[in-house]
Amino acid sequence: MDIQDFFAQSCGRWFSQRTSHHLAFKQTETGQSQLTIELVAVTDPAVIALCEQYECDPALASCGARVSWDGTMAWDEEKHQGSTVLVTIPDAAGATTGKLLREVGYAEKTPVAGKYVMGEDGALTLITEYETMYSEERLWFASPNLRLRTSILKRFGGFSMATFCSEIRLGVTKPPEQTATAVASK
Amino acid sequence: MDIQDFFAQSCGRWFSQRTSHHLAFKQTETGQSQLTIELVAVTDPAVIALCEQYECDPALASCGARVSWDGTMAWDEEKHQGSTVLVTIPDAAGATTGKLLREVGYAEKTPVAGKYVMGEDGALTLITEYETMYSEERLWFASPNLRLRTSILKRFGGFSMATFCSEIRLGVTKPPEQTATAVASK
Repeated sequence: MDIQDFFAQSCGRWFSQRTSHHLAFKQTETGQSQLTIELVAVTDPAVIALCEQYECDPALASCGARVSWDGTMAWDEEKHQGSTVLVTIPDAAGATTGKLLREVGYAEKTPVAGKYVMGEDGALTLITEYETMYSEERLWFASPNLRLRTSILKRFGGFSMATFCSEIRLGVTKPPEQTATAVASK
Repeated sequence: MDIQDFFAQSCGRWFSQRTSHHLAFKQTETGQSQLTIELVAVTDPAVIALCEQYECDPALASCGARVSWDGTMAWDEEKHQGSTVLVTIPDAAGATTGKLLREVGYAEKTPVAGKYVMGEDGALTLITEYETMYSEERLWFASPNLRLRTSILKRFGGFSMATFCSEIRLGVTKPPEQTATAVASK
């Protein structure tokens, strides 16, 4: 699976169950949200504008997507809504690593370019370094309809939070599909 | 990191925060436990007995460990205590894959041999197939003092549960150690 396949398979509507383990406090916070992921053509004005903001050549962009979310976290009970555009810029033609541009940073509200690594095991790793913060996120598909994510967040050099999301594709009439290794198929 | 390194680094006492996402019910269950992991010599009577139970040659065992836990899950509020012995039998000398023998199955109480794969990225994957159940677990170290685990469980061919554990080493006086990539070291 390459980065284009990963983006294509991520498209659609997802129900996301999210759990954050606050490591210093030994406490758990849960939340739920709906995610909508749509592909955006690399020639789209939103992609070009984002590339220009990061001083990247838009002709090098390999993938574009718009991610929208609508959810709640237990502690503040506020609605969390928003959307962002993501663009990938491979390090070289055919490279499995590159830059990830986002309109809004994952943990801070200032634009920041991350790094991505598309692993041989089909997992996508995203690394974002902020001035006082470091986040590493791993996303992978357990099946076409079940996507999992973990992330760890460091602040000032110490681990502060570990987060897990399980994301079930919405709009499929049966439960998340089994993979080729499912026991029922044996 | 090979399987021996992974076992050695796992030794000690850990505070484990556990979250299970019940996928069909879209519900979350949390729990906490203390884990104690000790190495057991491959010549130990417990290792030899386990190998014989699985009809494996004890001389092929590469690692042994005893894992004890003491915790609670929110839904039943009962104490969950127990311990198990684990033994690894590589597929060949120096192989990164092999069999994992356990006294007590992870999800069922009958002995069952699993498969392990020690990945190049330092993550250990454990796969256990039961008659009506399939579990795949991934364990990795974010740092020497922070171990993360995810698992997915299928019943009758459909995904039923996704679980995440963050495990902080106990008995260290400072927060979980930063890795080489920590921002503070830059």
